[in-house]
Amino acid sequence: MSHDDFKQKSEDDEALKRRETALREALLDEQFTLAQDKRSAVIVVISGPDGAGKGEALNRLYEWLDDHSLETLTYGPPTREERARPPGWRYWRDLPARGRIALMLGSWRHAALRDRAQGKATREDFRAQLEETARAETMLRKENVLVAHLWLDLADGEAQRRLKAAREADGALHKPLVIEWDELTTKKERARLRDAVQETQLCEAGVEPFKIIPSRDARLRDLAVAEELLATLRRAIANANANADADANVRPSDALAQEGAVRASAPRNAIAMLDLTKSVTDEDYATRLRRLQRRLTELTTQRRFRKRALVVAFEGNDAAGKGGAIRRVREALDPRRFRVHGISAPTDEEAARPYLWRFWRVAPRRGETAIFDRSWYGRVLVERVEAYASPDDWRRAYSEINDFERQWIDADYVIVKFWLAISRDEQLARFEAREAKATKRYKLTADDWRNRDKWEAYETAAGDMIARTDQSCAPWTLVSANDKKWARLKVLQTIVEGLEG
Amino acid sequence: MSHDDFKQKSEDDEALKRRETALREALLDEQFTLAQDKRSAVIVVISGPDGAGKGEALNRLYEWLDDHSLETLTYGPPTREERARPPGWRYWRDLPARGRIALMLGSWRHAALRDRAQGKATREDFRAQLEETARAETMLRKENVLVAHLWLDLADGEAQRRLKAAREADGALHKPLVIEWDELTTKKERARLRDAVQETQLCEAGVEPFKIIPSRDARLRDLAVAEELLATLRRAIANANANADADANVRPSDALAQEGAVRASAPRNAIAMLDLTKSVTDEDYATRLRRLQRRLTELTTQRRFRKRALVVAFEGNDAAGKGGAIRRVREALDPRRFRVHGISAPTDEEAARPYLWRFWRVAPRRGETAIFDRSWYGRVLVERVEAYASPDDWRRAYSEINDFERQWIDADYVIVKFWLAISRDEQLARFEAREAKATKRYKLTADDWRNRDKWEAYETAAGDMIARTDQSCAPWTLVSANDKKWARLKVLQTIVEGLEG
Repeated sequence: MSHDDFKQKSEDDEALKRRETALREALLDEQFTLAQDKRSAVIVVISGPDGAGKGEALNRLYEWLDDHSLETLTYGPPTREERARPPGWRYWRDLPARGRIALMLGSWRHAALRDRAQGKATREDFRAQLEETARAETMLRKENVLVAHLWLDLADGEAQRRLKAAREADGALHKPLVIEWDELTTKKERARLRDAVQETQLCEAGVEPFKIIPSRDARLRDLAVAEELLATLRRAIANANANADADANVRPSDALAQEGAVRASAPRNAIAMLDLTKSVTDEDYATRLRRLQRRLTELTTQRRFRKRALVVAFEGNDAAGKGGAIRRVREALDPRRFRVHGISAPTDEEAARPYLWRFWRVAPRRGETAIFDRSWYGRVLVERVEAYASPDDWRRAYSEINDFERQWIDADYVIVKFWLAISRDEQLARFEAREAKATKRYKLTADDWRNRDKWEAYETAAGDMIARTDQSCAPWTLVSANDKKWARLKVLQTIVEGLEG
Repeated sequence: MSHDDFKQKSEDDEALKRRETALREALLDEQFTLAQDKRSAVIVVISGPDGAGKGEALNRLYEWLDDHSLETLTYGPPTREERARPPGWRYWRDLPARGRIALMLGSWRHAALRDRAQGKATREDFRAQLEETARAETMLRKENVLVAHLWLDLADGEAQRRLKAAREADGALHKPLVIEWDELTTKKERARLRDAVQETQLCEAGVEPFKIIPSRDARLRDLAVAEELLATLRRAIANANANADADANVRPSDALAQEGAVRASAPRNAIAMLDLTKSVTDEDYATRLRRLQRRLTELTTQRRFRKRALVVAFEGNDAAGKGGAIRRVREALDPRRFRVHGISAPTDEEAARPYLWRFWRVAPRRGETAIFDRSWYGRVLVERVEAYASPDDWRRAYSEINDFERQWIDADYVIVKFWLAISRDEQLARFEAREAKATKRYKLTADDWRNRDKWEAYETAAGDMIARTDQSCAPWTLVSANDKKWARLKVLQTIVEGLEG
């Protein structure tokens, strides 16, 4: 090395050193702000060809950050526990709470990348898959969870060389390698993987392209990774501010005006059109109830059901008879294979994550039934009416919920949704009866009376909900519930048909 | 049937009907009280020979209770996910929150019963096993979680007859049978099972005997089961009151006197005797650090480690250097296989359950490492000093913690526990340095200054803790930490030795 070269190198070293020091201070600052602020979470996916140094980069971040609000999430081939539920479940299960940073190895993009590299997916399929996950990421961003996808880029020959060297070295003296693409054994497949990564630059519909990180020089690679994390942290804070501003800027009057616009564009309120006079004789009820319950037992115990799951959501007016209907469903089920989830205010662990998390976390396994007494529709009902969610938030929830349900249905889950409707007079009569009867009194709270005063607001919200989330794969069933018995039969009948379909 | 017989029968029917009505009302009342009160949880284990009607009895309870605060927990042979952790994990994972009732099929007694029935365990082994679980149940009771074990009793011949009939009936029209004792194929084994159940009447050391429920008549059986549940619910409320009274009756002066008694009987405070002047040169540090980290990497990547897990608990004075020590441990570990848990105030889901639950829920799988920055010892440190726990509560925690650790160690987990000690002057110097340095400032809070004022109280608590929980299988290591580097080496050295041992 000439004197000049040497001088140049040590000057470069100095510059890198300064860059690193500044970066580490800024990183800790932003991490601390995130952890204190508790409004956002950050997920950084570290991917790249095997041999590019994903594990090393991860280690470097652990060295530079405070590990209390940091976690690593690793996804390989799904375990049996994971396979028993929809594919998204494992990612939702691990979703970091607001205030935390997750570094992720493996991700919801990996299957699509692998298929594309192995030539199993067309370019269109690949894009469609990425666009689907992009919708989920958009939702996460609105919920203040920011995701960045990094790709540690390294020429195939060099990556293979490093991989070989690492494998030949004494394994015990090295931390295990992060191997994600073991199946891509040919050069061609690996080239197609790299192409697929590049293609994310061309995707539309909100697909965030991979950030390409040149990885030949480990030190520069780690600096670049850390800089991306820093940028993501800053975006997370800015994003949370922007989301909060958007909420604050909707003045009550705007909200009302917008609500009016929504209402005008909605089809006529289906609930208002419902015939509430339907009823059934006691005799008919007894016979048909027995028959329907038997059929439901049959359907949930036959072999076919082991590959499916049943999800039943009950919404409706207070005192509409949800509890009684749930009991008749439950009576037909094996108590070891169902669970009833009463949905009220979220716990603090739930409140620290996007609103759908609490439903994902109790996703039934295949072969099981989950009954929700009130459900994810709370977002567009009580949260809307009581203004717990901003208009922006509940308005985007319609399509988010449709996406959410479609993921479960794609996993062969059967979703049945009920709105149990009673008249205002019938509700009053039932409230009064509850007050009078000892074993029912616990069902009536001051909230029930308060909600009754907001009857119209709830009816509007319910009407909009039904108009916007009545998917053919998960349709709403409006149940005329002034006659409890008629309602119970209708509920059972609908579930049975859902499972038979 | 003669006229008299008929009359008798309808009178009996009437009486049963009245008994049932009164029971159902009382059950709902108590369930409601439990759910509102949120101080206690109740677990009712429904066991018995196959064919005695466990599933039917369970269904009946679902019919009579409100299902919102009710859940069914089922335990068969452990799944892979469950086998990856200590045997107690799956029960802890599902522990109902206070306010809830769990009906349990299968339990922590079943393995012992099965072994005894198959002649694999001596009477002494059997008793010892039950007594071990009884200690856990005592702890649960103190934490307001009440457990009742029911045994639906039925003569073997009759049980077998029913089982056969049920199996021959059209399976689809019946709910699946609860089969727990399929391996007990001989009459003799089943007789020994029944004997073992009876034997629980003779056990000592707090083993609750099975409540024997005659199960020939299904209606009487279900009534008896419900009455046991009712009694347990009432005991739960009374127990919560008693626990609260016990706490309230300890006046501050009593507490101090009792504390004095504890202190007098304790060996001399080990922390006070610690030599804090130990140190290491920079050069030695660098060499030894590298060597120890390499060895730790080796030990946690070799095949043997896949059957074990490493659990490291850090306690110590504020600013004693826990974070720096943790980092040096972490650097040697695969980031995909460890997690650092910073323990501060519990979430509301954690606060709704016994204090050890939050540690069980993050039990590492085999092959993984869990590092706790502060730990389950908070119960006898901060909770004692700040009076978050009553003297009764923190005093019983010593043996509860010893039991807890032993369960992990029995599953081949290695537990290493550190107390990092610095002098009061050194702490002051470090606090001041933290205030001065931008990247460290976030580490210092007002709590730190307040805790500093309670130095003696913490030192006493720590001394007691070490004296009472220094188990040979999970010993404490006191680390002289005025020299951070010396402390880090000591920590690494101790972990390495723990894994080598």
